Amino acid sequence: MTITTPHLGATGITDHKMEQWGFPTRYDNEYLPDPRSEFWFPNRETMDPDLRAEVILERIQTVMKYAYANSTFYRKKWDAAGLEPGDITSYEAFESVPVVTKQELRQSQLESAPYGDYLCVPDSEIYHIHGTSGTTGTPTVFAIGRGDWDTIANNHARIMWGMGIRPGDTVFVAAVFSLYLGSWGALAGAERLRCKVFPFGAGAPGMTARAVRWLAASKPAALYATPSYALRLAEVAEAENIDPREFGIKVMFFSGEPGASVPSVRSAIAKAFGATVIDCGTMAEMSPFMSASATAGTPDGMLLWQDIVYHEVCDPATYRTVPYGGEGTPVYTHLERTSQPMIRLASGDLTSWVMEDNPCGRTYPKFPRGVYGRIDDMLHIRGENVYPTEIDNVLRNISMYGGEHRIVVTRTGAMDEMLVQVEHTLDHPTADLVDRFAGDVGRELQAMIGLRVGVEAVAHHTFDRTDHKARRVDDRRNFSASGGQS
Amino acid sequence: MTITTPHLGATGITDHKMEQWGFPTRYDNEYLPDPRSEFWFPNRETMDPDLRAEVILERIQTVMKYAYANSTFYRKKWDAAGLEPGDITSYEAFESVPVVTKQELRQSQLESAPYGDYLCVPDSEIYHIHGTSGTTGTPTVFAIGRGDWDTIANNHARIMWGMGIRPGDTVFVAAVFSLYLGSWGALAGAERLRCKVFPFGAGAPGMTARAVRWLAASKPAALYATPSYALRLAEVAEAENIDPREFGIKVMFFSGEPGASVPSVRSAIAKAFGATVIDCGTMAEMSPFMSASATAGTPDGMLLWQDIVYHEVCDPATYRTVPYGGEGTPVYTHLERTSQPMIRLASGDLTSWVMEDNPCGRTYPKFPRGVYGRIDDMLHIRGENVYPTEIDNVLRNISMYGGEHRIVVTRTGAMDEMLVQVEHTLDHPTADLVDRFAGDVGRELQAMIGLRVGVEAVAHHTFDRTDHKARRVDDRRNFSASGGQS
Repeated sequence: MTITTPHLGATGITDHKMEQWGFPTRYDNEYLPDPRSEFWFPNRETMDPDLRAEVILERIQTVMKYAYANSTFYRKKWDAAGLEPGDITSYEAFESVPVVTKQELRQSQLESAPYGDYLCVPDSEIYHIHGTSGTTGTPTVFAIGRGDWDTIANNHARIMWGMGIRPGDTVFVAAVFSLYLGSWGALAGAERLRCKVFPFGAGAPGMTARAVRWLAASKPAALYATPSYALRLAEVAEAENIDPREFGIKVMFFSGEPGASVPSVRSAIAKAFGATVIDCGTMAEMSPFMSASATAGTPDGMLLWQDIVYHEVCDPATYRTVPYGGEGTPVYTHLERTSQPMIRLASGDLTSWVMEDNPCGRTYPKFPRGVYGRIDDMLHIRGENVYPTEIDNVLRNISMYGGEHRIVVTRTGAMDEMLVQVEHTLDHPTADLVDRFAGDVGRELQAMIGLRVGVEAVAHHTFDRTDHKARRVDDRRNFSASGGQS
Repeated sequence: MTITTPHLGATGITDHKMEQWGFPTRYDNEYLPDPRSEFWFPNRETMDPDLRAEVILERIQTVMKYAYANSTFYRKKWDAAGLEPGDITSYEAFESVPVVTKQELRQSQLESAPYGDYLCVPDSEIYHIHGTSGTTGTPTVFAIGRGDWDTIANNHARIMWGMGIRPGDTVFVAAVFSLYLGSWGALAGAERLRCKVFPFGAGAPGMTARAVRWLAASKPAALYATPSYALRLAEVAEAENIDPREFGIKVMFFSGEPGASVPSVRSAIAKAFGATVIDCGTMAEMSPFMSASATAGTPDGMLLWQDIVYHEVCDPATYRTVPYGGEGTPVYTHLERTSQPMIRLASGDLTSWVMEDNPCGRTYPKFPRGVYGRIDDMLHIRGENVYPTEIDNVLRNISMYGGEHRIVVTRTGAMDEMLVQVEHTLDHPTADLVDRFAGDVGRELQAMIGLRVGVEAVAHHTFDRTDHKARRVDDRRNFSASGGQS
């Protein structure tokens, strides 16, 4: 296999055999692959990545021409930058296209309410309205076109096929159906894949115990949830004397949080349910958000299905791509969306990428550790960079860890202090045993993150479990900390 | 217009012009009516009801033949009754077909888990799994086929067109997306009608306040919810100093509870939102459950769209239809479902029906007061029959009523006692004013239901508001009380 670099000059190749490759995208909704095939679209998934890159560059120009013609937002932005779509004849040129920030999208929606001046289709084409939860400021509205919904469903079906999910499998969706796009995207993919979908949802009081009973009764082949909620489902099942392995789930796929690529969280889920754990997901804005996803044959990390969404990993200062092997922030470009296409959307997330032979045979680059944080999630504590996911990972490897914790960051003068409140599972918590547990935790954390941090051991079930995404950081220094992954 | 009776002999008429009338049903998903038409299918909706009845009788035979050939459940049941589908050559004969009870469906699913032996399609055709919430015993699973989902969407789109909803309208769905089929049915209909759907959901903590903000921002043309939840949305909006009329909602359609046909609940909703109130809904098992629904031109009660689902109102002792004008229990028969077709499903609900000229021009019979109770909801108190909806209706006409109440029924020896706990909105609740309020309530209730009942006036917001269906009866006599409408 040829190992390519992310940079490539285009030569305008059109003589390719990429299945159902067109713009505007119109997939054949009756298509299913050969049942023996591991691939939905064998050519698109296993082709020479250099050739794929040339074709993608052509598509990038096409999408940019479309967005320039159909939206004031992109026309103004690119005019101000002194560029036009016809200039984008190389990846070097593409990297000079200014990124789109979430703040710009919000501003556009304030000025051109409700959908913003980056809506590129007539109002009558809008099919579904969703939005961000808006817990951190003005929410953003997603107006997704009828054709785009269809494209999202086809892409998710294709990627879920790659996870090993097949027509006729029961897919249990255990995440809230509301603004959050994760559950809707899993539903659309499962419907298109001709699965039996059980859209159970989550979030209302009493639903977790009921979900456990329905999982035991329906024995789904696949489950979609957030990683935090999967752990909660396991806890609730065990409290009712049900072994989650009895659900018989084969594949569990996750988005919404980094957890499914955090090694100890990943193994805790795999162990509790006896299932393959698949991480996927970019951002709600980027639906089909599963474009970064592991597969049955390459279950670690997330492959970047570049012919669906073009993924770059960039230096957050220059927004030029970093070489394979490097760390940076993902920047995403839609190749198949027409309603609110995102062209170089800055995620604010943090990852690294590699290009290597994948056991599953797909010739895509990979986020080997998934998306493991956000630039603004990183806690700077006395000169050290600390990621909440690292702490999660350390704690889950400690025996007697009770499954939940909180991270409290304070500042005294110029000095940052971090206190980790950690649940234990001691049956008879004498002062001595609790101290020993806290000491163990402190030593393990110091070994991993290179900092002495305060540790407070607290009783099991002190902290609320979440039905959705975990919020564990309480940063009292007046900075904000929020997650943005879909 | 000819006024027909529910009984009619069949003559095997096939020379009719009913649009897209076939079995198995396959609707044209691209079809939309002339924008100036009030009807989706003018012929099916306005045809001579006698002619329609003849065609429906043919279809009943077809569906029965299909169910007999494809399910052990119906074959056994009808063999035991000594009948076969070919015998059903008249409505008299059809009324001798034994009804299906929910208990039989549960039993079938226990013996032939998980979907019961009334599933008439191969497993691979199952598209969505939903179920009853199971708050009152073993839950029932709904396995809905791909073709049936499509049929449900087409039928709901047609009925929503009748409500005055049009392509391009924003439809806000404010009901939980989980087991409950109400929200899913509204979503499917709105999608097919080419509306912009905002599937917001309900039920999770904090969602009501967020729904209010999104309603203010998205200004939907139509809203779907349960009646109880609409009143809660209005309360929360008013608490945040938002007038619900500013949402600009034109049509509100409801199922799940009888409220939208209870005059005072109906007018409270209409007044709060300044919108037309439409009642619809039969049972979750009967999806497309909107087959009983009001229209823009006939907004009171519910028309029975007999060519979608055949509705009978029966004497609960004999399960023979009562004449138009009479009261009884609805019995429902699917004419367009293939996955789990219900043939004479006994609802346990209570209604009356009439056949009269409808202002909208549709030649359907009508439930003039909607579905106003359940046979087992009826409280027998000292020889009087009391329906909880009647109490609701009385209270909402009393000034200073705080919007919620509870009904506590106890037995002392052989004597039943009913206590109604009623919220007031007195700003300065002196003992005197509270007594006067309670006295007013007692007098009004006695005048309506013919019984002296205990009244306890309690402070505003004493009782929890619901995100879903109201549960107001606390029957401590060891009987059960539950609602079953979808």
